[in-house]
Amino acid sequence: MSRNSAVSRPARDPRESVSEATAARLSVYVRCLAALEGEGVDHISSQELAKRFHLNSAQIRKDLATFGEFGTRGVGYATGALKRHLISILGLDRTRRVAIIGAGRLGSALADYGGFRSGGFRIAALFDNDRARIGSKSRAGVPVHDIRRLAEIVALEKIEIGVITVPASAASEVARKCWEAGLKAVLNFAPVRLDPPPDAFLKNVDLKINLETLSFYIARA
Amino acid sequence: MSRNSAVSRPARDPRESVSEATAARLSVYVRCLAALEGEGVDHISSQELAKRFHLNSAQIRKDLATFGEFGTRGVGYATGALKRHLISILGLDRTRRVAIIGAGRLGSALADYGGFRSGGFRIAALFDNDRARIGSKSRAGVPVHDIRRLAEIVALEKIEIGVITVPASAASEVARKCWEAGLKAVLNFAPVRLDPPPDAFLKNVDLKINLETLSFYIARA
Repeated sequence: MSRNSAVSRPARDPRESVSEATAARLSVYVRCLAALEGEGVDHISSQELAKRFHLNSAQIRKDLATFGEFGTRGVGYATGALKRHLISILGLDRTRRVAIIGAGRLGSALADYGGFRSGGFRIAALFDNDRARIGSKSRAGVPVHDIRRLAEIVALEKIEIGVITVPASAASEVARKCWEAGLKAVLNFAPVRLDPPPDAFLKNVDLKINLETLSFYIARA
Repeated sequence: MSRNSAVSRPARDPRESVSEATAARLSVYVRCLAALEGEGVDHISSQELAKRFHLNSAQIRKDLATFGEFGTRGVGYATGALKRHLISILGLDRTRRVAIIGAGRLGSALADYGGFRSGGFRIAALFDNDRARIGSKSRAGVPVHDIRRLAEIVALEKIEIGVITVPASAASEVARKCWEAGLKAVLNFAPVRLDPPPDAFLKNVDLKINLETLSFYIARA
């Protein structure tokens, strides 16, 4: 992966490099398997999984083969076991702590956002440089700390992921502070390209792609 | 596509059905081609494009072949012409107007968000049911209207896309209002599954997948 892909990290070894698209598909498979498990489906073939959730069966087999031998010929995948295995591969079998840097509207909305706080992640802290915000709490109770305490609180709270929600003009400096504070994984909402060090993971959120996908369907309707 | 995929719409004709993943990749190709154009690269092969941006060359050829014959054997794709063609396929050769329903922190942050407002889209209106918000404007000047005026203003302002940023508990009712108001394309930020009519496009934004992808890389580091 390079700075041009959404998750930037130089591959140390080609065998280790798994594309961001593959990683994102693992998340999708977990959601599909959880839905099937909820319906009491205990085994499913890659073809059935593909048909049911509009995925590609060859892609499913290829993605899963990267991580081991999961299916049984003629029986398919064991729904619950495969889900748990993928959760483990995604590192979601433990809670990861997240800091949000930028306690403005987007940052505080994300701190309290149901789709962000649930299973696997805990928003441990917000950071800002605005004295009017420092010392306050989000509605869900996430404390807002002085950005100058980032390294200290990252270490104290064992925070692993930083989310950047500051204005574009401040994002590069904030990203540098994140990396200096030991945050190896950064999710960037600022519409600006950042320059991660070789040992850091950076994922840029491009919300506009969602609007473009809708535009595509409107244009073809 | 079905309710189980992120963009929900029953395919009227299998030939017409292009997956959401394909549509999203077209957006990525446009960004890559724009970067190359900026560097003065006038032709590029699918192999070079794949290598440069860490994509899959067979996937690029397959995706583009869906929409016509673009490349020239031995010469590759004409950077600028392909970019313009993809922009046209994505329906981004004209401005599409967007309404955001829910003028809370997330909605008003998105209304003013640089990565959302730029080229191709115009945030024309915010809507809310809170009288304290109705009549105000976002920092960037987007007016907040009474949700009861949704259909009227959608027609008046020729709005095509609705973005739902209300709490999960209100999202289903708001989605129904969007569809009744004639918004055929809806982007849903509420962590709840909506039930679109057959002629509507729905895209659910799952921000947590971004955290999960980072978790995957942390777990393998």
